[in-house]
Amino acid sequence: MSITLDRPVADAASDAVTAWLQKFEAALTAGDTKAAAALFVTDGFWRDFLTFTWNLKTCESPAEIEAMLNATLPTTTPKNFHIAEPAEAADGIISAWINFETATARGWGQIRLRDGLCWTLLTTMTELKGFEEKRGPAREMGAEHGVDRHRKTWLERRQQEQAELGHTTQPYALVIGGGQGGLGLGARLKRLGVPAIIVDKHPRPGDQWRSRYKSLCLHDPVWYDHMPYLPFPDHWPVFSPKDKIGDWLEMYAKVMELNTWNATTADHAEWDDTRKEWVVQLTREGKQVTLRPKHLVLATGLSAIPNLPTTKGAETFHGEQVHSSQYKSGQNYAGKKAVVIGSNNSAFDICGDLWEHGADVTMIQRSSTHIARSDSLMELALGGLYSEAALAAGVTTDKADMLFASVPYKILHEFQIPVYAEMKRRDADLYERLEKAGFMLDFGDDGSGLFMKYLRRGSGYYIDVGAAELVANGSVKLKSRVTVEEITPTGVKFSDGSELPADLIVYATGYSSMNGWAAKLISQDVADKVGKCWGLGSGTTKDPGPWEGELRNMWKPTAVENLWFHGGNLHQSRHYSKFVALQLKARLEGIPTPVYGKPDVHHKA
Amino acid sequence: MSITLDRPVADAASDAVTAWLQKFEAALTAGDTKAAAALFVTDGFWRDFLTFTWNLKTCESPAEIEAMLNATLPTTTPKNFHIAEPAEAADGIISAWINFETATARGWGQIRLRDGLCWTLLTTMTELKGFEEKRGPAREMGAEHGVDRHRKTWLERRQQEQAELGHTTQPYALVIGGGQGGLGLGARLKRLGVPAIIVDKHPRPGDQWRSRYKSLCLHDPVWYDHMPYLPFPDHWPVFSPKDKIGDWLEMYAKVMELNTWNATTADHAEWDDTRKEWVVQLTREGKQVTLRPKHLVLATGLSAIPNLPTTKGAETFHGEQVHSSQYKSGQNYAGKKAVVIGSNNSAFDICGDLWEHGADVTMIQRSSTHIARSDSLMELALGGLYSEAALAAGVTTDKADMLFASVPYKILHEFQIPVYAEMKRRDADLYERLEKAGFMLDFGDDGSGLFMKYLRRGSGYYIDVGAAELVANGSVKLKSRVTVEEITPTGVKFSDGSELPADLIVYATGYSSMNGWAAKLISQDVADKVGKCWGLGSGTTKDPGPWEGELRNMWKPTAVENLWFHGGNLHQSRHYSKFVALQLKARLEGIPTPVYGKPDVHHKA
Repeated sequence: MSITLDRPVADAASDAVTAWLQKFEAALTAGDTKAAAALFVTDGFWRDFLTFTWNLKTCESPAEIEAMLNATLPTTTPKNFHIAEPAEAADGIISAWINFETATARGWGQIRLRDGLCWTLLTTMTELKGFEEKRGPAREMGAEHGVDRHRKTWLERRQQEQAELGHTTQPYALVIGGGQGGLGLGARLKRLGVPAIIVDKHPRPGDQWRSRYKSLCLHDPVWYDHMPYLPFPDHWPVFSPKDKIGDWLEMYAKVMELNTWNATTADHAEWDDTRKEWVVQLTREGKQVTLRPKHLVLATGLSAIPNLPTTKGAETFHGEQVHSSQYKSGQNYAGKKAVVIGSNNSAFDICGDLWEHGADVTMIQRSSTHIARSDSLMELALGGLYSEAALAAGVTTDKADMLFASVPYKILHEFQIPVYAEMKRRDADLYERLEKAGFMLDFGDDGSGLFMKYLRRGSGYYIDVGAAELVANGSVKLKSRVTVEEITPTGVKFSDGSELPADLIVYATGYSSMNGWAAKLISQDVADKVGKCWGLGSGTTKDPGPWEGELRNMWKPTAVENLWFHGGNLHQSRHYSKFVALQLKARLEGIPTPVYGKPDVHHKA
Repeated sequence: MSITLDRPVADAASDAVTAWLQKFEAALTAGDTKAAAALFVTDGFWRDFLTFTWNLKTCESPAEIEAMLNATLPTTTPKNFHIAEPAEAADGIISAWINFETATARGWGQIRLRDGLCWTLLTTMTELKGFEEKRGPAREMGAEHGVDRHRKTWLERRQQEQAELGHTTQPYALVIGGGQGGLGLGARLKRLGVPAIIVDKHPRPGDQWRSRYKSLCLHDPVWYDHMPYLPFPDHWPVFSPKDKIGDWLEMYAKVMELNTWNATTADHAEWDDTRKEWVVQLTREGKQVTLRPKHLVLATGLSAIPNLPTTKGAETFHGEQVHSSQYKSGQNYAGKKAVVIGSNNSAFDICGDLWEHGADVTMIQRSSTHIARSDSLMELALGGLYSEAALAAGVTTDKADMLFASVPYKILHEFQIPVYAEMKRRDADLYERLEKAGFMLDFGDDGSGLFMKYLRRGSGYYIDVGAAELVANGSVKLKSRVTVEEITPTGVKFSDGSELPADLIVYATGYSSMNGWAAKLISQDVADKVGKCWGLGSGTTKDPGPWEGELRNMWKPTAVENLWFHGGNLHQSRHYSKFVALQLKARLEGIPTPVYGKPDVHHKA
């Protein structure tokens, strides 16, 4: 049982944080950027989401912090730094939640102190002053009390908005892609009063999920997957089945009053530099429509552009060939032969589905894969932040998102390595049997496991929900250490000279960079100017340097004016949509948004 | 700023409650019902929802408590009474939240002590042991990890349920009426695993709201209106517009996976005493269907059976005549003459709507009306339990519902009278001007205002959202202290000999008792056997005695086997649906449910 006392925080840990914040604020107020930077340890970090930099930016040393402050302090006017809750001390680190404000915004942050100096600081924008969301005590009335001969009802206003937006009025932002990413961002824009249209090719919201193979469930657990504003109720299953998520998203679009244009394709976009707006050609339910939004957000997801290898002889194949994104079900393949090229998430899921339908399945593994059992992942990697236990310990979804963001990418792998070492130990039996079956395993170049692979390259892993066992025990055959040489009319030829007959070939060969969507929609020039999306520049496999410190081009200004990329898993979409929305709102309202630290573009894709 | 300490509650108020609970439990364990009853003050109350009585029952004296315990204690086996949170002391009363259990269930309660004895005790069932809802840590997995050649996906299982239930399998409960009441109850039944079908005549869930007059908004504020399990997000407007609530309910039915049969009418029901089940004839999308549920729940609402007076000459009228429930909009009545018979909620809303559309409107007031301004009501009557301030003070929706239920009906008016005295003072100007305009005002027979009128008679008031001003300032004409004598081809003749020309007559004449639905669906005999629904037996206007202590026939066993009535406003539907669902679940699982204190039936309607 617990008691709540109303009294000032006055424990030693909180005092230490308050003392640090006072010195920090004094230095900032005095414009003494050197003194402010000197309050960080030499290996200290400051990650900022918009409050100082109008960017997502990690400064990775006192020198970088000083440079950032030199550039940003004059326009930021930060003040009123204070501790928001009692600090906690453990293992020589004091950590605390903080609040602060700038000339234009309010901020929420998280700080870790070591020996009285700051080791990590996360500062994030929560709201723009004067443009707060209308919620809680500030919510709208709904009914206008009193009588008014010209009142419009909610329905009439909603119908008018839908009739006008995109026809007689233009959206400020056009979001391409109406999956969880586009809808969550749409909801944030709606609540901030940013006129937006979300277009999606599918007939209904949620169809992105409904149209996938039938056994698909989310691979991340429910606590990680909430949409902004409207959390799942507490009976929602741990792993949402795809159709259930589809229904939730459809409902979400409706009750959040999003202006979704479904059954709509974005065909071409071009920047009108005179009017400083995009000219976007769309086909909506068969009809041509032109929109002129100021901002274009590509929220088509990490898995938008299938990576389909051109293989010699592919056109001669007599059976069916599909990319994993087009695969629906193994129901027509009972007793038939299927070859699945690839050994990551989709490959395993599809092999499992084909096996369940009685197909004779062979997985082709071309390079090593990291396998993390879902249970182990939930317990070891996510449990501290996203679980019932975390909720019971007061780690709300908002706090979990912040804590996740509070560890700089530069050192994130150090926290991940022990997690996966433990996983390796715990699931040794499965790993051993997989290797005996010929499966090539890895845990990332540095043993840092799944989430780092996801951030660095967005591929190379399987969250095992059961199908690894099929490979380990030979139910699904494995052919590894080969590449595909040629497709014949009846099967697949490999680099080792062997051949497999096939009725079905599934290319579980992944997806290419999101800027491929910019190439498709706008032009190759613009895609090249934006450069590669995603990845940290870690120099590990498929993540070429130089080091970037943040994910390339995601949720922040790009090298192309008014072009944005939004996406990621449900956790990232939820958290980062907030900052995309605030950046757009600030621009809509004419609030100056000087961007600090826009990176150079090093890779085209 | 607040600190949470993990230590036992040890303040004086909590100690007093703990001491009382220990004495109480000792008496119950010893079977000493006299000693247990003696722990209550002589004007003490014990209100029980299911835990001891399998009924909603208020015992209004130590003697009644002793009698109840004598009957129920042998089968209840109550134990483990303990304080759930620190107690609070104010004005000589110590109040606390408590937990306890019985042989079959867990309970949550609220207690108030006066001079060391119990003044009010509320005990409510939260869950049946062994039949807990699957939520939080006990939620379903969603994905079945592992591989299984015969697995069914969520969608397949859902489709199978929809295909079978009502066809090859029978629902355990059939809920007639798919408004907020039926849907909320349906959600509770779903989560408890009670097979149920909810039928509604409208094409889509939410159409009950969509089909009403266009300016309609909820008259209660958002904090009062949440549905079970899925609260509105925090930007939801204070007063939900009708179409927005309609969309929410449609979404709710979908994501809660309710088996709603829309476009379905229940035509006739009959009890099959041999098979102990109902035989219900329905028309579903034009086709005849027979269902055989064990239980029938009428959730058609307080406003299901329009009260339409038969007036001499009505058939000769050349204009349009509608009951308020059929009224849609005044848009065709600009410049025309409308007569609205009645002076309660619907009458005012419709007069306002007609006036806004430019009609020449006259309200006919036959008897006095209680008017409570919405703002005043929110602040004075609901604010302590249902508001942002209440939430900030830790009064969650669940706690607010419990606190509302914790004050016995017998003394509720005593708490209400000062609220309305203050309202009378605060809004004196409006009341004075209404009376000057000829309007007959009241505040209930004993000055206890709106909520008591609602409980006692379900009528006689207007929650003023603006239209009272139209009557006060003469924009809407008023004719009061008259009754309608006759309808002529061109207008209305009154008891004072006067006559009004009319193009439209609206009968805002209210609704009859919910057992009218039993008459319509089953038989007049059954309706008479059930007797009047709603009302407390207070002996005040339209609420004839004898005193009942609970609302007649609502949410509890009736005089007719396996026939239930569910309804009320959103707050009542939310809270009491829990107890209807638990009663049905217990019966489904064969848990003994000996009902204590079923009242006699005194009034047929």
